[in-house]
Amino acid sequence: MYFTRPETVLNLQNIRNELVRMEDTIIFKFIERSHFATCPSVYKEQHPGLTIPNFEGSFLNWVLLNLEITQSRIRRFESPDETPFFPDKIQKSFLPSVNYPQILAPYAPEVNYNDKIKDVYIEKIIPLISRKDGDDSNNFGSVATSDIECLQSLSRRIHFGKFVAEAKFQSDIPLYTKLIKDKDVERIMENITNSAVEEKILERLTKKAEVYGVDPTNKKGEKRITPEYLVKIYKEIVIPITKEVEVEYLLRRLED
Amino acid sequence: MYFTRPETVLNLQNIRNELVRMEDTIIFKFIERSHFATCPSVYKEQHPGLTIPNFEGSFLNWVLLNLEITQSRIRRFESPDETPFFPDKIQKSFLPSVNYPQILAPYAPEVNYNDKIKDVYIEKIIPLISRKDGDDSNNFGSVATSDIECLQSLSRRIHFGKFVAEAKFQSDIPLYTKLIKDKDVERIMENITNSAVEEKILERLTKKAEVYGVDPTNKKGEKRITPEYLVKIYKEIVIPITKEVEVEYLLRRLED
Ligand SMILES: N[C@@H](Cc1c[nH]c2ccccc12)C(=O)O
Ligand SMILES: N[C@@H](Cc1c[nH]c2ccccc12)C(=O)O
Repeated sequence: MYFTRPETVLNLQNIRNELVRMEDTIIFKFIERSHFATCPSVYKEQHPGLTIPNFEGSFLNWVLLNLEITQSRIRRFESPDETPFFPDKIQKSFLPSVNYPQILAPYAPEVNYNDKIKDVYIEKIIPLISRKDGDDSNNFGSVATSDIECLQSLSRRIHFGKFVAEAKFQSDIPLYTKLIKDKDVERIMENITNSAVEEKILERLTKKAEVYGVDPTNKKGEKRITPEYLVKIYKEIVIPITKEVEVEYLLRRLED
Repeated sequence: MYFTRPETVLNLQNIRNELVRMEDTIIFKFIERSHFATCPSVYKEQHPGLTIPNFEGSFLNWVLLNLEITQSRIRRFESPDETPFFPDKIQKSFLPSVNYPQILAPYAPEVNYNDKIKDVYIEKIIPLISRKDGDDSNNFGSVATSDIECLQSLSRRIHFGKFVAEAKFQSDIPLYTKLIKDKDVERIMENITNSAVEEKILERLTKKAEVYGVDPTNKKGEKRITPEYLVKIYKEIVIPITKEVEVEYLLRRLED
C-alpha cells in the first residue's frame, strides 16, 4: 500500500491485508511490553523521582512528546496513516513535503482518537499484558519506550478505520449520503459492521497468540500473551474504537 | 535480571535466559524491517531530497542521534546494559542518577562496538532481511525507525558479552589472570567459546524463524525471515562480534 498511489489505498482487500499485518506488529509489541511490570509511576503527572523540569505531564508523555517532535521533523504526520498524540505540539518538517494525493476528506486529521487510545491503553491494556503489578524503577525508560511502540501501532490500526470508511462510502455513495444526511448513526454502524469479518479476526488472533505467545523451543516456559487477553483487547477496545473512527469520519463526509 | 541487584546479574544462567529472550526481540524487529525495501538513500550522507540542515550525516544517523539524545536525558545510557551509538553527543539526565552498583570494570563503557555493528547491519544484514532492493520514499521514516530498533537490540545483545566475560573471569580468576597477563588472545578465545552452547543457539533460532517467520494463519503467505538468513546473521555476525567484545573486555581486566 502506497499513499502516493491512491488506487492501492482504497481497495478493501489491500486494506484488510494491511490490517492483518498490523495484528502481528501489535502482538510483537505487546509481547515486548509483557516482560515488564505495570509501572504505574510512569503514567502519573509530576511523580516524585520522575519529575521533569518545566513539564507538567507524566514521564510517558514527556518521552512520547519528544519522540513525536523528532518524528514530525521528518514528516511522520504528513502521512495519512499516521496520527499524532500531540497535534498542537508537533513541528514542521525541514524536508520537502511529500505531497500525498488527497485520498481521505480534508478534515481527516481532525478525527483523532489518540487521547482515548492512550487512556484505555493505560487503564485496561497494561494490566492485562504486564507480567506483574507494581513499579520497577530499573525499567521506567524501557517501559515508556515499549508503551510508545504499542500506542503508535494501536493508533495506526484504529485510525485505519478512515480508509475503511472512505472505501465503504465510495462503494455505495447513495446509501451513505442518505444515512449521513439523516444522521442515522445506528444504520451507519450496521452498514460498516461485518460480523463475519470480525469473527475471523478474533479466530486469527487466537491462533497467532497461541503460536507467538510461547517460546517455540520451550513450550513450558512463561506465557507472554494469552489468546483470551488478546481477543478481549480487540473485541472490547480495538474493534469498537475503530468503528467510532469510521462513524465520526462518515458523519462529516458531506462537508465541503 | 536487575542491574541494581548485582547477584542476579553475574549468574550465567540468568545471562543465558536474557540472551534467549533477546533472540525473540531481535527476530520480531527483523520481521518488522522485512516488510520494507533496502532503501539505500537512508544510509547515505547528504542525500538529495533527504538533506538535513546543519547535519553532515545520513538520515538514519540524524534520527538515531536525536533519539539517543532524548533517551540519554532519561538515563538510558547510565544502565550498564545500554551502549550509545553517539557517546560524545549524548546528554546528562535531569533525573536523579540511579547509582547502579559497579558490576563491570570501570572501563566497560569504552568497550563500544556500535560503529562496527551499524556498518555490518547496513552492509550485510539489511540486504538479507529486506523485502526487495531499492528505495521506497514513502517509507524512509518508517525504515529508519525500524532500523533503530534492530540496531539497539543487536547492540544490547552483543554488548551483553561484557557480562558473560565478567562472569567467566569471576569463575576462574587464576586462569584468566594468567591468560590476560600473557595477552594470549587465542586461549582466551578458546576459553570463552562453548561450541555446544553455540550449536544450541543456532538450533533454537532455526526453530524460532520457522515459527515466527510465517503468518500461522496463512502458511502459504509471504516468508518474513528465513531460518537460513537468521542463522547466518548470528553465526557470522552476532556471535563473532560478541566474542570480540568479550576478548576486549577481558584483555583490560587487570587494569586499575
Ligand atoms: N532499562 C533502563 C535503561 C533503558 C533501556 N531503554 C531505555 C529507553 C529510555 C530510557 C532508559 C532506557 C531503564 O529503563 O531505565
Ligand atoms: N511511512 C511514512 C510515515 C512514518 C511512519 N513512521 C515514521 C517515523 C518517522 C518518520 C516518518 C514516519 C514514512 O516513512 O515517511
